[in-house]
Amino acid sequence: MSRITAATTVDVRFPTSEQLDGSDAMNPDPDYSAAYLSLTTDAGDGLVGAGFVFTIGTGNNIAAEAIQTVADELVGDSVENLLTDMGTTYRRFVYDSQLRWLGPEKGVVHMAIGAVVNALWDLKAKRAGQPLWQLVSSMTPEELVGLVDFRYLTDALTPDEALAILRRSEPGRQQRTAELLERGYPAYTTTPGWLGYSDEKMLRLAREAVAEGFTQIKLKVGGSLEDDVRRLSLARAEVGPDIQIAIDANQRWDVAEAIAWVKQLQPYDIAWIEEPTSPDDLVGHAAIRKGLDGVPVATGEHTANRVMFKQLLQLDAIDVMQIDAARVAGVNENLANLLLAAKFGVRVCPHAGGVGLCEAVQHLSMIDFIAVSGSWDNRFVEFVDHLHEHFVDPVRIEHGRYVAPLTPGAGTQMTTDALERYRFQAN
Amino acid sequence: MSRITAATTVDVRFPTSEQLDGSDAMNPDPDYSAAYLSLTTDAGDGLVGAGFVFTIGTGNNIAAEAIQTVADELVGDSVENLLTDMGTTYRRFVYDSQLRWLGPEKGVVHMAIGAVVNALWDLKAKRAGQPLWQLVSSMTPEELVGLVDFRYLTDALTPDEALAILRRSEPGRQQRTAELLERGYPAYTTTPGWLGYSDEKMLRLAREAVAEGFTQIKLKVGGSLEDDVRRLSLARAEVGPDIQIAIDANQRWDVAEAIAWVKQLQPYDIAWIEEPTSPDDLVGHAAIRKGLDGVPVATGEHTANRVMFKQLLQLDAIDVMQIDAARVAGVNENLANLLLAAKFGVRVCPHAGGVGLCEAVQHLSMIDFIAVSGSWDNRFVEFVDHLHEHFVDPVRIEHGRYVAPLTPGAGTQMTTDALERYRFQAN
Repeated sequence: MSRITAATTVDVRFPTSEQLDGSDAMNPDPDYSAAYLSLTTDAGDGLVGAGFVFTIGTGNNIAAEAIQTVADELVGDSVENLLTDMGTTYRRFVYDSQLRWLGPEKGVVHMAIGAVVNALWDLKAKRAGQPLWQLVSSMTPEELVGLVDFRYLTDALTPDEALAILRRSEPGRQQRTAELLERGYPAYTTTPGWLGYSDEKMLRLAREAVAEGFTQIKLKVGGSLEDDVRRLSLARAEVGPDIQIAIDANQRWDVAEAIAWVKQLQPYDIAWIEEPTSPDDLVGHAAIRKGLDGVPVATGEHTANRVMFKQLLQLDAIDVMQIDAARVAGVNENLANLLLAAKFGVRVCPHAGGVGLCEAVQHLSMIDFIAVSGSWDNRFVEFVDHLHEHFVDPVRIEHGRYVAPLTPGAGTQMTTDALERYRFQAN
Repeated sequence: MSRITAATTVDVRFPTSEQLDGSDAMNPDPDYSAAYLSLTTDAGDGLVGAGFVFTIGTGNNIAAEAIQTVADELVGDSVENLLTDMGTTYRRFVYDSQLRWLGPEKGVVHMAIGAVVNALWDLKAKRAGQPLWQLVSSMTPEELVGLVDFRYLTDALTPDEALAILRRSEPGRQQRTAELLERGYPAYTTTPGWLGYSDEKMLRLAREAVAEGFTQIKLKVGGSLEDDVRRLSLARAEVGPDIQIAIDANQRWDVAEAIAWVKQLQPYDIAWIEEPTSPDDLVGHAAIRKGLDGVPVATGEHTANRVMFKQLLQLDAIDVMQIDAARVAGVNENLANLLLAAKFGVRVCPHAGGVGLCEAVQHLSMIDFIAVSGSWDNRFVEFVDHLHEHFVDPVRIEHGRYVAPLTPGAGTQMTTDALERYRFQAN
């Protein structure tokens, strides 16, 4: 038997604002950051469990304080007890009444619980000698249902319905695993699309993306309608009619403005409009989707929890669910999100980019493909080409697809060098 | 001209779990706490601006870290610049893109912004020599509209509509101010209702509440149906048919369970069912309200922001809006909530109790009465009889009503003694 001996949190910040990487209509100058957790044990195997909250600078210290507070409760606990039943371990945190008060199930504390839960999954996968996607997609439907918290979901998804979904895709698991290993999971790229880039840089990066095999790119919009029309028309002319172009407003508009603005961009054949308004405005997303009549609506990177996703589905508010690996309470809650999407027949195209989000979320789409929805048709994991070098097992993209990782773990471990070089020092 | 010279945050925790004060179906053993902010200046007038986040124990340090991070940005700023245009000052924080990422507009960081904004209002009212309710309800309709952030609201409430609401109640301000000063604002009490109390203690406290002049009490429910039926039947027999009894499930149920459970309690004449399910489940609240067909539905103490309140109203999900002084981004956002409620014709009955929530929120209901809805019919501010002695200007209840405070400020300042005695020391 072994025990958790330490929970160490580091405030890591990269000075990305210098190059305007990551700039959009709401976030003009982000400094991509991570509040990063390492769990160490006395097992003597050298394995650590790593997890993080992604932020864009200010307040990364708050996320670190939250992670430390949550993770401190694990120190001294039996690793085997924690990892054997990850459903119970996860519920221990999200059912903690005093922590719930600080959300409930939203904001910094919820994200911190996600970092801790993900760090435990990382450790569990490393101990199993498997990448996370393989570990989870080999679990039985009953085991997977046991990982989910169905509280507040049963009016839309019951445990029995979830079990039926998982059993339906069970027979094809082996074949899809082979397909995944051979072909990789589809990706799309946002690398060309940041608002701070010149037209020339945008077009060059779009051209390169197509040459690299991507079939969908994404552009940021919402700063100025005139600029958006020009950029989209240039991009469409550059990539031709067969490449999908999604657009992302990063919560920029109210409902009426979103509808009016996007209608002006509709002639350029929009793959989806992402985050047209407040992520909390479920009713607003439904009104925008209805008003646009045909342009797919996507959201999710700021959707706080499974209860919010449930309602987006109940209200017919989205065509695309964009889960994020570090926004909700970890792998367990994202499994609930995948099941909800499967129940309602909505595509899952995860948000990524940031710091380590690609590394982490690819596993969830692979789990979805093998064990949940069983489909990757018109589904993509977002890809942004920066900061991967700071991870021990960086993502690999080939021909516009994520190569399925084979290294044991959840992909969440940063290099010692990055942790040392980019550790934040308050003034 | 004067400047903010320091922002000092203290982690204050009271050991309330020892007496089971505050115990309910979801929070069995809270330790009522406050992450407390004092802003000091070099004006030489001795005035401080005080604000806080209320928590129930674990994680109070996270709230303190968040407040410190937000408030540090004020140090060195001109007090006059900050206080003259509180709309701009408030938007400076809620529009900060890096802080937004940590919510957006929800959870610990949003509450921390609320504490800072409220501390500035406290200072502004002290400088004006007026209690907050009087300061704000003397502002012109145009000034009040300027305090609100209408982003994400315009599909339900435009600035022009808000102005019309405020102008409509302008003529009666003087008369209602006199009425308020004479009679006080109606209160209801939750003091008898905690789940951890014996039947005898509950009945004794209910009897005392009626004797003291309260016309509504509230009982916690959701632990066991059998217990709830017994307690409600005892309470109803004790207080008679003319006293209103509200019940509060503190988010205990899923949708179907909420409807089935409350139907069993309906014979005891329920004033409202509060927090039947997840505060995020707007669609769920609408379904519960429809399913109960006649029992008023109340929620709001955990409603993260004005966008969530907007949707509760758009979906006809609530009969009673329960704003909280320390959950959203301060006085400004609660003014938006009051205006939304007025637009949709829904009663506002604030959540209070905790640490300092009564002291703070009474001002908002008084502002609503004088300057916004112009009504206190069947409206009450919650009252719980504990921890008031730790505030410099504790609430005064007479004949079941809040006596309008006359001391300058927002009621948020704690005593030096409390801050010293209950300062939390981590192990």
